Amino acid sequence: MDNSICQSHRLPLNLRLSPNKPLRHMPRQKWRLPLPFDKSSGTEGRKGIRIIYSYIYIMNSYAIAIHGGAGTILKSTMTPEKELAYKTALQNAIAAGESILQKGGRSIDAVEAAIRSLEDCPLFNAGKGAVFTHDGKHEMDASLMNGKDLTAGAVAAVQNIKNPISLARAVMDKSEHVFMSGAGAQEFAKKINAEFMPDDYFFVQQRYDQLQEALKTDSVVMDHTVSKDNKEKKFGTVGAVALDLHGNIAAGTSTGGMTNKKHGRVGDTPIIGSGTYANNKTCAVSCTGHGEFFIRSVVAYDISCLMEYKGLSLKKACDIVVMDKLVKIGGEGGLIALDAKGNIELPFNSDGMYRASKRSDQDLFIGIYKD
Amino acid sequence: MDNSICQSHRLPLNLRLSPNKPLRHMPRQKWRLPLPFDKSSGTEGRKGIRIIYSYIYIMNSYAIAIHGGAGTILKSTMTPEKELAYKTALQNAIAAGESILQKGGRSIDAVEAAIRSLEDCPLFNAGKGAVFTHDGKHEMDASLMNGKDLTAGAVAAVQNIKNPISLARAVMDKSEHVFMSGAGAQEFAKKINAEFMPDDYFFVQQRYDQLQEALKTDSVVMDHTVSKDNKEKKFGTVGAVALDLHGNIAAGTSTGGMTNKKHGRVGDTPIIGSGTYANNKTCAVSCTGHGEFFIRSVVAYDISCLMEYKGLSLKKACDIVVMDKLVKIGGEGGLIALDAKGNIELPFNSDGMYRASKRSDQDLFIGIYKD
Repeated sequence: MDNSICQSHRLPLNLRLSPNKPLRHMPRQKWRLPLPFDKSSGTEGRKGIRIIYSYIYIMNSYAIAIHGGAGTILKSTMTPEKELAYKTALQNAIAAGESILQKGGRSIDAVEAAIRSLEDCPLFNAGKGAVFTHDGKHEMDASLMNGKDLTAGAVAAVQNIKNPISLARAVMDKSEHVFMSGAGAQEFAKKINAEFMPDDYFFVQQRYDQLQEALKTDSVVMDHTVSKDNKEKKFGTVGAVALDLHGNIAAGTSTGGMTNKKHGRVGDTPIIGSGTYANNKTCAVSCTGHGEFFIRSVVAYDISCLMEYKGLSLKKACDIVVMDKLVKIGGEGGLIALDAKGNIELPFNSDGMYRASKRSDQDLFIGIYKD
Repeated sequence: MDNSICQSHRLPLNLRLSPNKPLRHMPRQKWRLPLPFDKSSGTEGRKGIRIIYSYIYIMNSYAIAIHGGAGTILKSTMTPEKELAYKTALQNAIAAGESILQKGGRSIDAVEAAIRSLEDCPLFNAGKGAVFTHDGKHEMDASLMNGKDLTAGAVAAVQNIKNPISLARAVMDKSEHVFMSGAGAQEFAKKINAEFMPDDYFFVQQRYDQLQEALKTDSVVMDHTVSKDNKEKKFGTVGAVALDLHGNIAAGTSTGGMTNKKHGRVGDTPIIGSGTYANNKTCAVSCTGHGEFFIRSVVAYDISCLMEYKGLSLKKACDIVVMDKLVKIGGEGGLIALDAKGNIELPFNSDGMYRASKRSDQDLFIGIYKD
């Protein structure tokens, strides 16, 4: 790709070159530019102008944000080694998504890639790091949504699937359904040759200890760590939202649920509208928190509606839902959200939320605690 | 209960007597009435006035609406006997709910009772009349929500449960979860002694014929009847919405899903926000239609948001969602909705919808086709 023509003719900053973008996609007022063009570039007269114009399109910024769960995450209970491990994992997930966005890839692909990275990391309660259910199993939920055309896919209560988010993607792309659960979703996974892993793969000692602790008190608990010295409660979920260079946004969420949860409990993660929602007109949202409250509040779509119907900004909508409405009903947690302009919000009403974001025009941000 | 005091003192029409309503629940301006009272009623002075006032409360009208599915339901393909059977079943379901509302019972109980009546009838695709899945099983989904406190319960992919709506109710009342699916939901059902029925109970010849027809073409189809002479496609779902005398609204939905559906497919019926939603501030909604589109459109909560955030009436909100937004994405179906004022809407964009409604101050309405 050659930017020299742009540069020599002082095109506005948001205009760049692309060999693939057809002319008809460009707003007319944007490509009627003061000329003449440089003859040496091989463009002459009207024909030449048309050729050049067909190489110009508006390049938005891209943006991506991820989360690795919210909850009682305190600096006082964190070791430097652990903090570094979390930060590295978050950075890797951002990189997985950003590498796709940078090349002009689709936001839905970036969301899937970032979440796969988090699912493959034992630190987070999703995929490999999924918590144990009451029966000592791992039941995972995931969903994703494409803001461009409102297509969506979701799975609930799947077992031994390496990357539930990719199974949700397959439900979206390769089935006539949006949402599949349990044994039926497993059968579908076999049919499309999804990657299965043995139980051993999902065994993480810390998660097993969490179950034993929860079984003692017969409590259904969040993804948490309890030790003699500290109590930490996390709503273990991972998620990603992304905006691509084409102006399309997408969202996805994946979780291992709650430690010691009754077999079959479904939280907000696979629920389109509650745990995940994306619409180019408004925003892309991925939630993490006490799922029951997020379902009853239809959290993700609520933010979209506040923007669409009340004309609120992404920030204002997020503030109302996370810091007011959810707080009032006792719904602890947070979410990540972005809009098609590249605005990013990472609100949470708990003590902390593993989170990171990156925009094409900004530095990487990584956060864990309240700042 | 004696209404004579009301009548003799010309109380406003919306004021009636109740022995149970405590004084503190009454808006002050409503119970400061012109006196004196009839001494023969045993009420004298300030003490007597207080006694009488404690027997007065605002009686709203009650209202209930139900549906038995939408789709290609044409008068030309209906026999008088079949039509009568449907109308009788709808009337019975309304009666089941109304008998609770008349006595001052709760809207959530009326919704459950009306849906149980529809689930017990083989004509509708829910409970006894649930369609066959691809594997020749019956997998049922249900959900309900209480508009007073936004509590909710839902089950998906449950088998052999006589009344899935009552299992959803139990998830709401007796578990710490909102949504349970598959084998886990079955285990929960056993624990709370839900009523199980053998496979035979759910065998309905017409449904079996539908599966055989669908298997021939390997198509996942709605609850439908196909014969040589006519093609009828129905989105078989049942639902109810109700407003009780206390001003609380509730909604519930139950379904047997789609004939020949892949084991594990979940539609909008158990999704709070999509198939079912209730909030005293706005409306109670129960949907029936092509579930995948209803999930992606978060239909039930969308109507609530249009009312809350845009200030639209129930009718206008229903029109926008059912007749415009859903139509544009190809989402065939309908819904029933009511608000806390007793307004009822029964919109659908298909050829017909089995539906009925009753308000305390209006006659019973039963509809099947487009009028």
